[in-house]
Amino acid sequence: MMNITIVGAGRMGEIYAQIVAQHPTARIHTIASRSMGSATALTDQYGGYPSDDISQAIADGGSDAVIICSPTSTHLEYISLAAKAGKPILCEKPVDLSIERVLACQSVLAENPVTFAVGFNRRFDPAIDHLRQRVQRGDIGRLNMLLLTSRDPGPPPLEYLRHCGGYFCDSTIHDIDLACWITGELPLEVYTAATCMVDTAIGELGDADTAMTTLRMPSGLLVHINNSRRAVYGFDQRIEAFGDGGMLQTLNHTEQTVQHFSAASTHSQPPLQHFFLERYAESFRREVDDFIKAVQHGTDPCAGLEDGLNALKIARTCQASFELGRNLPFAD
Amino acid sequence: MMNITIVGAGRMGEIYAQIVAQHPTARIHTIASRSMGSATALTDQYGGYPSDDISQAIADGGSDAVIICSPTSTHLEYISLAAKAGKPILCEKPVDLSIERVLACQSVLAENPVTFAVGFNRRFDPAIDHLRQRVQRGDIGRLNMLLLTSRDPGPPPLEYLRHCGGYFCDSTIHDIDLACWITGELPLEVYTAATCMVDTAIGELGDADTAMTTLRMPSGLLVHINNSRRAVYGFDQRIEAFGDGGMLQTLNHTEQTVQHFSAASTHSQPPLQHFFLERYAESFRREVDDFIKAVQHGTDPCAGLEDGLNALKIARTCQASFELGRNLPFAD
Amino acid sequence: MMNITIVGAGRMGEIYAQIVAQHPTARIHTIASRSMGSATALTDQYGGYPSDDISQAIADGGSDAVIICSPTSTHLEYISLAAKAGKPILCEKPVDLSIERVLACQSVLAENPVTFAVGFNRRFDPAIDHLRQRVQRGDIGRLNMLLLTSRDPGPPPLEYLRHCGGYFCDSTIHDIDLACWITGELPLEVYTAATCMVDTAIGELGDADTAMTTLRMPSGLLVHINNSRRAVYGFDQRIEAFGDGGMLQTLNHTEQTVQHFSAASTHSQPPLQHFFLERYAESFRREVDDFIKAVQHGTDPCAGLEDGLNALKIARTCQASFELGRNLPFAD
Amino acid sequence: MMNITIVGAGRMGEIYAQIVAQHPTARIHTIASRSMGSATALTDQYGGYPSDDISQAIADGGSDAVIICSPTSTHLEYISLAAKAGKPILCEKPVDLSIERVLACQSVLAENPVTFAVGFNRRFDPAIDHLRQRVQRGDIGRLNMLLLTSRDPGPPPLEYLRHCGGYFCDSTIHDIDLACWITGELPLEVYTAATCMVDTAIGELGDADTAMTTLRMPSGLLVHINNSRRAVYGFDQRIEAFGDGGMLQTLNHTEQTVQHFSAASTHSQPPLQHFFLERYAESFRREVDDFIKAVQHGTDPCAGLEDGLNALKIARTCQASFELGRNLPFAD
Repeated sequence: MMNITIVGAGRMGEIYAQIVAQHPTARIHTIASRSMGSATALTDQYGGYPSDDISQAIADGGSDAVIICSPTSTHLEYISLAAKAGKPILCEKPVDLSIERVLACQSVLAENPVTFAVGFNRRFDPAIDHLRQRVQRGDIGRLNMLLLTSRDPGPPPLEYLRHCGGYFCDSTIHDIDLACWITGELPLEVYTAATCMVDTAIGELGDADTAMTTLRMPSGLLVHINNSRRAVYGFDQRIEAFGDGGMLQTLNHTEQTVQHFSAASTHSQPPLQHFFLERYAESFRREVDDFIKAVQHGTDPCAGLEDGLNALKIARTCQASFELGRNLPFAD
Repeated sequence: MMNITIVGAGRMGEIYAQIVAQHPTARIHTIASRSMGSATALTDQYGGYPSDDISQAIADGGSDAVIICSPTSTHLEYISLAAKAGKPILCEKPVDLSIERVLACQSVLAENPVTFAVGFNRRFDPAIDHLRQRVQRGDIGRLNMLLLTSRDPGPPPLEYLRHCGGYFCDSTIHDIDLACWITGELPLEVYTAATCMVDTAIGELGDADTAMTTLRMPSGLLVHINNSRRAVYGFDQRIEAFGDGGMLQTLNHTEQTVQHFSAASTHSQPPLQHFFLERYAESFRREVDDFIKAVQHGTDPCAGLEDGLNALKIARTCQASFELGRNLPFAD
Repeated sequence: MMNITIVGAGRMGEIYAQIVAQHPTARIHTIASRSMGSATALTDQYGGYPSDDISQAIADGGSDAVIICSPTSTHLEYISLAAKAGKPILCEKPVDLSIERVLACQSVLAENPVTFAVGFNRRFDPAIDHLRQRVQRGDIGRLNMLLLTSRDPGPPPLEYLRHCGGYFCDSTIHDIDLACWITGELPLEVYTAATCMVDTAIGELGDADTAMTTLRMPSGLLVHINNSRRAVYGFDQRIEAFGDGGMLQTLNHTEQTVQHFSAASTHSQPPLQHFFLERYAESFRREVDDFIKAVQHGTDPCAGLEDGLNALKIARTCQASFELGRNLPFAD
Repeated sequence: MMNITIVGAGRMGEIYAQIVAQHPTARIHTIASRSMGSATALTDQYGGYPSDDISQAIADGGSDAVIICSPTSTHLEYISLAAKAGKPILCEKPVDLSIERVLACQSVLAENPVTFAVGFNRRFDPAIDHLRQRVQRGDIGRLNMLLLTSRDPGPPPLEYLRHCGGYFCDSTIHDIDLACWITGELPLEVYTAATCMVDTAIGELGDADTAMTTLRMPSGLLVHINNSRRAVYGFDQRIEAFGDGGMLQTLNHTEQTVQHFSAASTHSQPPLQHFFLERYAESFRREVDDFIKAVQHGTDPCAGLEDGLNALKIARTCQASFELGRNLPFAD
C-alpha cells in the first residue's frame, strides 16, 4: 500500500481523498491544511490523520507521496518541500500562474528528481484518451483540424475570477493542453479573439468570458478552441478531430437516457452532466491511478511539469493576443 | 414512352398522376374517374385526357398500362377489364377485402396473363429495402426476431373506418406484407391482442385501434407487430431485425434537423414526418418505377397478386384471433 | 450506522459487499458463506467478519439487517431464520422458484413481520425509474402500450441453465416485474411464443432462448416483452412506453462516446455496456440504499414479497403458455 | 405563368431548368447558351426554346425574367443586358470575383432598377432558415458564438481551382454570407489561418484547401468558420449557434436511416449525402421560388446584390489575412 499525504482540504482535497480512500493499492496517510477543521472533516470521512502543519506532513517519513491541491499560490512552496524530501508529487493544475516561478520549480525538480505529475485530468477522460489513441495510430489519417468546444455551465464567483489568472490560464489552459497532447505539437502562432458576453463585471476586471482561439501548428494542422463561461444547457465538452481519412468526435454526457416524444417535440431532459466533478469523475480516478502506477513502476506520469509549463506559456500568449488584438508567434 | 391510364382521381389518383407526369419514360394517357370533374382537375395539372368512361379508358388502344386506384370495391371489375384487354396492371392495396374475390381475380389473371403489381409501397422505401437486402445477404446472420412498429398520427374518419375492412386488413396488412417479404416466410401461427384506446366509437364498430400481433414462422423466428391509430408525435414507422450476428434498425424521418439545447432540455422539433404521403413519397415513386420497368423488361414486379393474397389471409387470421381471443394456426 | 450481514459470498455477495462498504450510513457486520475461504476473501477486501456459520451470523445480535444472496434454493431457510430473529431482509430475486414455497415464506413473514425487500434491481435504474414516474404522473397521457426489449450479451453455461428454473423464471421475470410496476396492473391474459435460436442444447433441456410475450392488462393496455439469450452487440435493455399523449423511451448505455466517421460509415465502438453488473451498477447501489432507508424510516421497500410472488406466477404462466402453445388467462 | 429565360446550360443550368419546369407558376421560355447543343439537350428534356444568341434571348419580349448561371466572368455582361431590358434577374453566386466589377454592376442596377437576387442557395435550406428564424426571434437569447463547419467531399479539378478566385471567394463565401445573414452583422475584424493538407498542387497555385476563419462582430459575438476541400465521409455542413439562452445545431443529412449493430460496433452507412446538388436540392427549389415570388409581389428577394458584395469583400479580406499572416480590420 502506498501512503499518500494530501495537501489541501478544499473541494479538490475532498475529490482526491475520496479517490485515494477507494484505491486498492493506496491509502490516505495525512490530510494537511492550514485549517485543522477542514482537515479533520475530511479525515473523519475518508480516514488518515489530520494535520495543520503542512511542512511536517509533507516531510513525514510514513508518507510515500504527496498530492498538492492547496491554493495555486502555495504550490511552489509545497513542491519544493516535497521534492527536497524525495516525495513523488501530483500537483493540481496550474502549477503556478507565473512562468518564472514554474521555471524556478523546474530547477528545484532538476536538483531533486522525483516523479512529478500535473493534474490535467481531462487527459484521463476515457473518451478523450480513446480519441487521442485513435488519432495517434492513424485511424483518421493525417490530422488536418482539431476543434475543441469547452463551455462551463456558469461563471464562478467574481472573487474567484479576481485571482484565477484570467480566463486563458484558468480555463482555456485545459483545452490548450489537450490540443498539444492530442496533436503532439506546440503552436507556431496563436490568435485569440475574446469578448465579454456573460457578465459585464468580468469585463470590468479586464477579463473575457467568451473566447475563440486559433493555433497554427508546425505540421500545418489548425486548432480551434471555443470557450464560454456560461452554457445554460450544461457543461459542454466536445472534441472533433478531422483528418485525411475521417473524423472522430467525443459526445457530451447526458444525465438521463430517457427520450420523450410529444406532439410538440422530441426531447431528452435534462441534457448534460452538471460540471467537471461529475463529468470528469472517472478522469480524476484514472489520473490518481496513473500517478500511483508511475511511482510504483518508476515510469513517467502522463502529464509532467513541462506539459504544465507549455500550456501556461500558450495560455499567456492567448492572453497577450486578446489584449493586443493581434495574432502572435509562439516561441517554445 | 409508356402511356399509362390511371383509374381513380382521388387522393391516390393524384399521387400516381404526379409521379407518372415526372417519370422520364412514361406519361399519363388518360385519367379516368366516375367524376369527370375530378378527372379533369388532375389532367389540367398533370396532363393526359380526362374520362368518365372507365371501361373505355382501360380498353383504349393508345394506353399501354393501367394503374388502378379507385375504391377497393371496384378493383376486381377494373382488373378483369384490364387483364382481358391485355394491359399490365398496378393495383393499389388491398386488391379486395374478400379472399374469395381475390381468388376469382387470380383465375382471371391465369386466363389473361399480364404483368400484375400490388401497391405495397412500403417495400420500396429505401431504408426498408436496404434493411431487407442486408438481412437476406446475411449481414446479421440468421434472423431471430423481427419487430415492426407502425402507428398512424391519427385515426381516419369513422365513415372510412366503417368500410375499410377492419384495422387488420386496412393497416396491419402493410406490416404483415413487410414481415413476410423480409423473412421470406409465411407464418405457422398468428396471435393478435387488440384493444380500443383511441376512440370508443371505433370499439362500437367492433374494431380495434391498438393492436399487438405475434407471428410464429416455420424457421422458428418470431415476428412482433404493434399498431396504433394515433401517435401524437407523428407517423411512427420503425423496423428492427435481430439476428445471430447483429441488429438492423430503420429510423423515423424527422421534418427538421435542428436540435435545440436549452436549460430545460434537448430537443428537435417537430419530431416526425406527418403521414404516409410525405413519409413514403419516395416509395411511391420507386413503386411506379418498378412497375414500369417490369412491364418494359418483362420481369416480375416486386409485389404480385399472391403477395396480396397472402397478406390478406394473414390479416384475416389476425382479425379472427382478436375476435376469438386465442392464437390460431395459419394455413397458407 | 446500520450493521449488515451478507449471506452468500459469490458474485452477488461481492456486489453487495462493495456497495455496503461504500455506503455512508451502513457497514458490513459479517459476510457468511458455507465456504469460509470465500467469506474471508470478501471481508479482507471490504471489511466485516467472515463466518461459515450462517445461522449464527443471521441471529447475531450485533447485526441489524440481512442481505441474502446465497443460491436460490437456500433463500427460504435463511429468510425464515432472519424473520424469526426480527431482522429486516433484502433477498435477491427470485425468492424461490416454487410458488408454494414463496407462499410458505409469506406465512413466515406474516407471523414475523420484518421489512422485506426483493432484489428487483432494475426498478432502481435511474432511467427506468424516471420513465415510470413520468408515466405515472401522466406525461404521456393514458398508457396504451408498453414494450420491453431485454437481450443478454450471451447465454450462461448449460450447468446454470439446468438449474435456473427456465428462461421465464430466470430472465423474463425481470421484465414482467417492470411491466407490472410501471403499469400498476397485473395481466388478464398471457401469451408467450418462444423458440430456440441460440443453442440447440438449450432446446434439448426443454427450454427456450428467444421469446416474445404479450400481456393483456385489465385497463386494455397491451404489453410486449422480447427476450434473447444472445445479442452479439451487447446487453440490450430498452423500454418504450406509448400513450395517448406521447412516448417515452429509455436508451441503451454505450461504453464509449467517441463517434467515428469514415469513407465507409459512421460508427461508435463498442456499442453497449457488457452485462448487468456494469449496466445496472447504479441500480444495485440504489436498491441497497432503498432497503437501508426503508429499515431506518420504517417505510416499505420499493419491491416486496408480493411483487416477487406476482412476477413468479406470471413467469410460470409464460412457461405454461410456451409449453401448451396457447394464450392463457392469468388469475392473480 | 412567369416565362423564364435561363442563361447557361451547364450543371447549374440543368438544376434551374429542372426546378423551373416543375414550378407551378413558372415555365421555361428559353435556355440560352453559347453552345446550341447544350441548350438543346436541356430544352429537349425540360421544355422551352433553345438559343445560342444570348443577348437576343435576354431581350426577348416573351420572357419575363432571367436566371443567369453562365460562367462567372460573363455575369456582368448579361446582368447589364437584362437590367437594361427591365428583366428581373436571379444570378448565381459569385456575381463577380472583382469588387470593382460588382460595384459597376451596382451602378447599372441603380440606373435600371430591377429585382435582383443572388443565388446564395444555402439561405434557403429549411434547417438553416429555421435556425436563423429561431436565433432572430430570441429562442437562444443573445447570440454569443456562431460556428460553421463546411467541408466538401473532395476537391474540384485543378483546372477549376485555377479560375475559381481562390478558396475564400469560391467556397468560404457561402459561410461568410450565412454568418452575416444569421447574425445580421458585418465583421469588424477578420482572421484566417489556412493551410494545404489535401493536395500540394493546390498549394502550388498559392491557394489553400484547409482553413479556419474568425470574424469579430460589432456586438461582440464571435464567428468561427472551418473549411476543408476533402471530408472522406461526405459533405459535412453544420451550423451551431450558441447564445445566452441555449444552443441550436443543424445536423448533417444522411443518405440512409438504417442503423447496424454488430459485435464490433454500431454504425449507419453511408454517412452523408454526397454533395451540394443532393444536400441543397430543396434549397435550390426554394431559392427559385423566392425569386419568382419576389418578382410577382414586388418584394425584395432574400439575398440581393449588396449581400453578394459584402460576402465578396469579406472573402477577399480572408484571402488577404491568409496571405499576410495576420488579422485585418474589415471596413464595410
